[in-house]
Amino acid sequence: MTIDEQLEYLRKGCAEIISEKELRSRLEECARKRRPLRVKAGFDPTAPDLHLGHTVLLRKMKHFQDLGHTAVFLIGDVTGLIGDPSGRNTTRPPMTREQILENAETYKKQVFKILDPDRTEIRFNSEWLLELGTLGMIELCSQTTIAQLLEREDFTQRYRQGKPISLHEFLYPLTQAQDSVALKADVELGGTDQKFNLLLGREFQATHGQPRQIVATVPILEGLDGTQKMSKSLGNYIGVDEPPEVMYRKVMQASDELMFRYYELLTDLSLREIAKLKQGAADGSQHPMDLKHDLAARIVTDFHGREGASKGGDAFRRVVQDKQVPDSMPEMSLPVEMRGASVIRLDKLLRAAGLASSGAEANRKLRENSVSVNGAKHRDMSYEVPEGVSELVLKLGKRWARVRLPS
Amino acid sequence: MTIDEQLEYLRKGCAEIISEKELRSRLEECARKRRPLRVKAGFDPTAPDLHLGHTVLLRKMKHFQDLGHTAVFLIGDVTGLIGDPSGRNTTRPPMTREQILENAETYKKQVFKILDPDRTEIRFNSEWLLELGTLGMIELCSQTTIAQLLEREDFTQRYRQGKPISLHEFLYPLTQAQDSVALKADVELGGTDQKFNLLLGREFQATHGQPRQIVATVPILEGLDGTQKMSKSLGNYIGVDEPPEVMYRKVMQASDELMFRYYELLTDLSLREIAKLKQGAADGSQHPMDLKHDLAARIVTDFHGREGASKGGDAFRRVVQDKQVPDSMPEMSLPVEMRGASVIRLDKLLRAAGLASSGAEANRKLRENSVSVNGAKHRDMSYEVPEGVSELVLKLGKRWARVRLPS
Repeated sequence: MTIDEQLEYLRKGCAEIISEKELRSRLEECARKRRPLRVKAGFDPTAPDLHLGHTVLLRKMKHFQDLGHTAVFLIGDVTGLIGDPSGRNTTRPPMTREQILENAETYKKQVFKILDPDRTEIRFNSEWLLELGTLGMIELCSQTTIAQLLEREDFTQRYRQGKPISLHEFLYPLTQAQDSVALKADVELGGTDQKFNLLLGREFQATHGQPRQIVATVPILEGLDGTQKMSKSLGNYIGVDEPPEVMYRKVMQASDELMFRYYELLTDLSLREIAKLKQGAADGSQHPMDLKHDLAARIVTDFHGREGASKGGDAFRRVVQDKQVPDSMPEMSLPVEMRGASVIRLDKLLRAAGLASSGAEANRKLRENSVSVNGAKHRDMSYEVPEGVSELVLKLGKRWARVRLPS
Repeated sequence: MTIDEQLEYLRKGCAEIISEKELRSRLEECARKRRPLRVKAGFDPTAPDLHLGHTVLLRKMKHFQDLGHTAVFLIGDVTGLIGDPSGRNTTRPPMTREQILENAETYKKQVFKILDPDRTEIRFNSEWLLELGTLGMIELCSQTTIAQLLEREDFTQRYRQGKPISLHEFLYPLTQAQDSVALKADVELGGTDQKFNLLLGREFQATHGQPRQIVATVPILEGLDGTQKMSKSLGNYIGVDEPPEVMYRKVMQASDELMFRYYELLTDLSLREIAKLKQGAADGSQHPMDLKHDLAARIVTDFHGREGASKGGDAFRRVVQDKQVPDSMPEMSLPVEMRGASVIRLDKLLRAAGLASSGAEANRKLRENSVSVNGAKHRDMSYEVPEGVSELVLKLGKRWARVRLPS
């Protein structure tokens, strides 16, 4: 690839690059010296369950790897070792070193579905931050001013609104900037909400006589509702560890508009290729539903291989599309008392899911052939759960319910 | 002493006590338990040369000692180990541990002229602050908010005026508050400009389940000009290491108003006794000049004993009062080439001091009996410096000069 082609490849899906000019000259310099760029991104050790929102960043790291560069996957374990020191947040107690290492293992399993392990360095910022000690922390703090930190948008807002900002929150941008110094990062990637912290890294590097890292931000990915940030707590997420059928079905829920957004941020297709697909959908030469299947297959392939993609596609077509399963329906987990058994009492489950008002009614409906499970009619009280199935879509008459099975 | 008498003794010269009620009950509690109060005050290790401004605080510590309590003389050496980390202040490079210990020795020599060594604990805050490390510092920072710190008057002003506040400056109030926790201070003393930091100590102690320290502030002492804060750089100071004659003479320069202020803050006289003196000066039964001699004698006695006081008084009367020496005159140090010799060439010195335009003129004036040294006429070119003399007041005709001798 020429430098121009490389830049185009790296630019795709970025919200901002500061600056492209610097990135170009750094790429040229590293090509000359046959030295790979060090491309850093930081991750929180407290939440190792990734969803597709996180993969936007990972994919950008991968693009650098595709060009021969090194991804530095930084686990901000110092944050984890502290928890929420203000004690206000009971969900963030300090973690032990073991828990952090365990989370790191979970991370690895997930991220290496996207990143190339041979071109990835996994680091923990405790390596250099714990060495700073009391004096080092004071010195670190001397490198920035209150006014500068209060310029960060979320701090500005909270300060103006009289909402408390604990002083330790000011330390995190600093330690993140120090991480760039310690890692001698050439590039740091982050969400657009990280821009301030990433730019601080440039300053700290300059203070330490290092060339300033190039900063590239990626957009915050919208969840399946198409408007809010993808997040576990909002329920609009696709987890990278979810079974292929679930992943596939969730992607198929996306609106046509969101679909093209996901094409841009969740696949390696170039902007030119995506424009062509859009054109096809617009002039009728491509059916949007076909494009959505293609997108779902691509995404599932990343995490479950081609086999997973076809399994997901089959399940979708069988259960959802052919039977016109509604997009949304009541969901529940399998009742505790039914877990562990390979055969389930369907009448009890229908009642538990609220589709029948009693076991007797459920039995009657079964005998009347009004019940289907995962798209197939079922008349028997006993139901043997097929292997590898992660959910049961129940239908009784015109009412639906989804039952998640324990993984 | 009754508790009321103790309170009156401790209250004298304080700007504020937070709160007197708490101090009363802490005094009662400690009397019951036969446990001395721990009375803390912090000192900067970078400037071990004390002047009388610092003794206001030391004297208040002494008053607690007089009642049987323990003075905790805290040297804030962590500050010294860092210097000015912003690098903006070239006069504050980091100090070595040796320099700090050396300064501590200098401190001891000076402060034990006021404090009782048997009831003094000398501590260094590096003992507990260095142990905090990176994680401890972050936790420390979590105990306070940006808004709270910006409420400190000098920070508020600087922030409003757009003057930079380096983040590490926010750490000093915190470490000072942490010192109170580590030392389990019952009382912390400081200048009025320290009030915010002292109050933060109360909060931190409460967070750590300790009873809140009582805070007592003492006024900032005015220098000899009677208006500005006593400080070395303003030249309006009386150093605790200055020779008795110099100390005595400087006190005698104070205005009558300043004299009573010094009586309050620099002696152990009670407010009642001072009121009596004021009354005497007002009704003419006491001559203000006599009161000033008494004050000078009291102050010099603290640092040089009774002998020093009478030496200082004699010198003052001989040189200054009897001969009507002007309050101010040109001053200089003894020229380098004349140092070390016990006999000085007076003609050369008169010329160096600018009282004669040439050696020949100086010689002529000596022969004409127009020259006096320290109040005594002198006709000879050679002058033998009497032992123990710290300065030579030269007079030639109507012109004066003061020459400081090396100590």
